[in-house]
Amino acid sequence: MSGTPAPEQLVERVTALPGFTKAIGTRVLSAGAGSVHLAVDRGPDLLQFNGFFHGGVITGLADHAAGAAVTTALPAGRIAVTIDLSIHFLAPADGRTIVARARAERVGGTIGVASVRIMSRSEAGEKLCAIATVTLRIVDDPPALRADGVVGSPGEGGGGRAAQ
Amino acid sequence: MSGTPAPEQLVERVTALPGFTKAIGTRVLSAGAGSVHLAVDRGPDLLQFNGFFHGGVITGLADHAAGAAVTTALPAGRIAVTIDLSIHFLAPADGRTIVARARAERVGGTIGVASVRIMSRSEAGEKLCAIATVTLRIVDDPPALRADGVVGSPGEGGGGRAAQ
Amino acid sequence: MSGTPAPEQLVERVTALPGFTKAIGTRVLSAGAGSVHLAVDRGPDLLQFNGFFHGGVITGLADHAAGAAVTTALPAGRIAVTIDLSIHFLAPADGRTIVARARAERVGGTIGVASVRIMSRSEAGEKLCAIATVTLRIVDDPPALRADGVVGSPGEGGGGRAAQ
Amino acid sequence: MSGTPAPEQLVERVTALPGFTKAIGTRVLSAGAGSVHLAVDRGPDLLQFNGFFHGGVITGLADHAAGAAVTTALPAGRIAVTIDLSIHFLAPADGRTIVARARAERVGGTIGVASVRIMSRSEAGEKLCAIATVTLRIVDDPPALRADGVVGSPGEGGGGRAAQ
Repeated sequence: MSGTPAPEQLVERVTALPGFTKAIGTRVLSAGAGSVHLAVDRGPDLLQFNGFFHGGVITGLADHAAGAAVTTALPAGRIAVTIDLSIHFLAPADGRTIVARARAERVGGTIGVASVRIMSRSEAGEKLCAIATVTLRIVDDPPALRADGVVGSPGEGGGGRAAQ
Repeated sequence: MSGTPAPEQLVERVTALPGFTKAIGTRVLSAGAGSVHLAVDRGPDLLQFNGFFHGGVITGLADHAAGAAVTTALPAGRIAVTIDLSIHFLAPADGRTIVARARAERVGGTIGVASVRIMSRSEAGEKLCAIATVTLRIVDDPPALRADGVVGSPGEGGGGRAAQ
Repeated sequence: MSGTPAPEQLVERVTALPGFTKAIGTRVLSAGAGSVHLAVDRGPDLLQFNGFFHGGVITGLADHAAGAAVTTALPAGRIAVTIDLSIHFLAPADGRTIVARARAERVGGTIGVASVRIMSRSEAGEKLCAIATVTLRIVDDPPALRADGVVGSPGEGGGGRAAQ
Repeated sequence: MSGTPAPEQLVERVTALPGFTKAIGTRVLSAGAGSVHLAVDRGPDLLQFNGFFHGGVITGLADHAAGAAVTTALPAGRIAVTIDLSIHFLAPADGRTIVARARAERVGGTIGVASVRIMSRSEAGEKLCAIATVTLRIVDDPPALRADGVVGSPGEGGGGRAAQ
């Protein structure tokens, strides 16, 4: 591909790749440079024993949103992968949909940090159910994405290192 | 049910309840008072774009292991639910199985803390791929578990509050 | 004392008690229910080897601000003490003053959560240098504060348990 | 200076530099490659209102120990600076001394992770009072250290960037 994809295109493509993010039904609500909103709808395989969204699903969504928020603020050919994450669960995620709103707080040459607010949305409205902060490492786009044409230009050196 | 179930029975039952933990194929390797080892095998819906286990799956497994480790150290009728969690990803989880080894570091009347080491296991051996620390709140067993006879004695007051 | 002190009075008094918080020169900029702003000015004993504010000082200030923000949202005689804290350092704290702005994100009966943004302030302006999230346990006011008349009514059962 | 200083020498020198770490009286108990033990003795300016060590002091000590543990595992001329830190307080630090035992869990080219256990030590013995996990960025040694001859060889490119 030529040129840099718009943030929304980039996030749409990464979110649609096979794997966990797609399997839980992640949808892109919006994506701008440094700001990404994602949603996942309730399903029986996504819950814990009380019928609330499971912490693993909430965290997985927050993680993906954080990575997307920082990646959209990077030059083409670079991508952000999670180093660590802290998440605080504030209220039961008992709605029909969870929405993660991620914002890049810092984008440097090698490290990015994003904060994420996760809402539980039902007919009655929205409530804050978790907040997360994610530290990410900025690397060259991995072959899995490059082969797909998802990120940046094919001429750049590959990465594929999801950890340091 | 009468009497307190052995830790292994308790963890087996909670792990087999319908929902995310079961859907990702969580298996109990061992469970003693304050110490629980769980495993999940690789599957296409559990990965991220590089073919490593996804952070949401690793975190979900760590979370469940932490809750189980603290709960096995509690009196019957009480259960530990996650308040917050921090996880650090140290190496790609590129093995065939991930194993979470959780240990209760502190069990008080209202708060518990567990540390978890998550290994990526392949033919070549094991490597440490993540470490997590989880803070949990100790509550009465929720109806979902009590109805199932999973936790403690049916006479105790119910909870079901997964958050404060 | 009789009646509930106003949030600003309460925070002023807690901040002026002998100990670390006073020793580093913590000043109260503002305090409302669930929102507290504190500041510390640069001094040679507060820095790390590059001349920036040390992480321990930044964290200590964030911790105190978080506790104050949640406590101001509690009924008289109750106080919030830290269970755990995560902090992300985004930029060198190289200003003349650091300012911590804490906000209570959740105040329950036994658990509170606050988020804190820490700014480095210089002649040139302010920049965000760290963000923190703090989980706190809500307990009866400890004797140390009650004796001083800092918190709530003297008739309530004492606490003094800074941990679970 | 020529040659690489032994880990204990390196940690002794960094710990003795003017600033917060020295001001709170940090002592080096032991230092090997990837493992550092530090201590701080009780003093009136280091406490919170209940007479326990303040969270800022505990965190500052854990932070310094983590940085030292990772730095001792690095080649000369490189140093580890904190990106983020999570700490869980398990019991009141009511002893005469707090001891931080840090271990490097991962040392890569750009990122290191250390875990720290902080003990409260009194005549009666030791108890675990906090656990921390610290993510660090690995950078060239800052001029402040190089000028002092603390770290590595003077020919290497300088750093001084305590954050990204």
